Amino acid sequence: MEEDCIFCKITEGKILATKLFESEKVLCFMDVFPASTGHCLVIPKKHHETILNVPQEELCEIIKTVQKTAAAIEKATKCDGFNVFQSNHEIAGQAIKHVHFHIIPRYKNDRLNFKWEPNKIELKELEEWQKKIKNHF
Amino acid sequence: MEEDCIFCKITEGKILATKLFESEKVLCFMDVFPASTGHCLVIPKKHHETILNVPQEELCEIIKTVQKTAAAIEKATKCDGFNVFQSNHEIAGQAIKHVHFHIIPRYKNDRLNFKWEPNKIELKELEEWQKKIKNHF
Repeated sequence: MEEDCIFCKITEGKILATKLFESEKVLCFMDVFPASTGHCLVIPKKHHETILNVPQEELCEIIKTVQKTAAAIEKATKCDGFNVFQSNHEIAGQAIKHVHFHIIPRYKNDRLNFKWEPNKIELKELEEWQKKIKNHF
Repeated sequence: MEEDCIFCKITEGKILATKLFESEKVLCFMDVFPASTGHCLVIPKKHHETILNVPQEELCEIIKTVQKTAAAIEKATKCDGFNVFQSNHEIAGQAIKHVHFHIIPRYKNDRLNFKWEPNKIELKELEEWQKKIKNHF
């Protein structure tokens, strides 16, 4: 547990959350500042800063909880689709340094926009990055 | 395998991809229209439309591959952070109907913007949604 981590405090019961699901390792609750109706978060109870720090067993439980929760959200909200979104480090939009997965239901005219400009890239350049990245596997 | 599915064709080797990692169930390759340098995709080899259709065993292998790949991308690109992003159904931005996880490296001044306006919501309303969603677990 990290002091001053709001998600650790939720896990410990020191701050209340609108919980949807709880297991030994994982917690799922509603986002208090939702991007859209039904927006939920799935977190490991143990404090890890980014997805890179999460042990595989916890990671599997997290993604299975994401799947189970998204199915329930879809039925309850009758949303038209949803995004699973996860940010690592401040530059990526990570505000709370305790890894969390967003499940964001999508609706017609929800004014959310997660699109990006597709960049053109030469095959040669892709292959250079392929080599560089593979070197770190 | 689905006819006319570009990711199935990549899996079958009918279309070439810049592959980073391959196992029995999972494939990871570089996005040909990258949002940023090092943008990769992780997919199950078997065709499933959304995350809701993916068997748990495949789902775990996918997220473990996302983690492993993101670690390699971070080292190779020296990015400042990254997003894991996954879209379900057209409204959420899903262009290819074969479930895929984006790993999008983030850099200073990358002009990407995945932020949203946080909405205010009353605790009472949150609790109503909590009940409705829990009913579908």
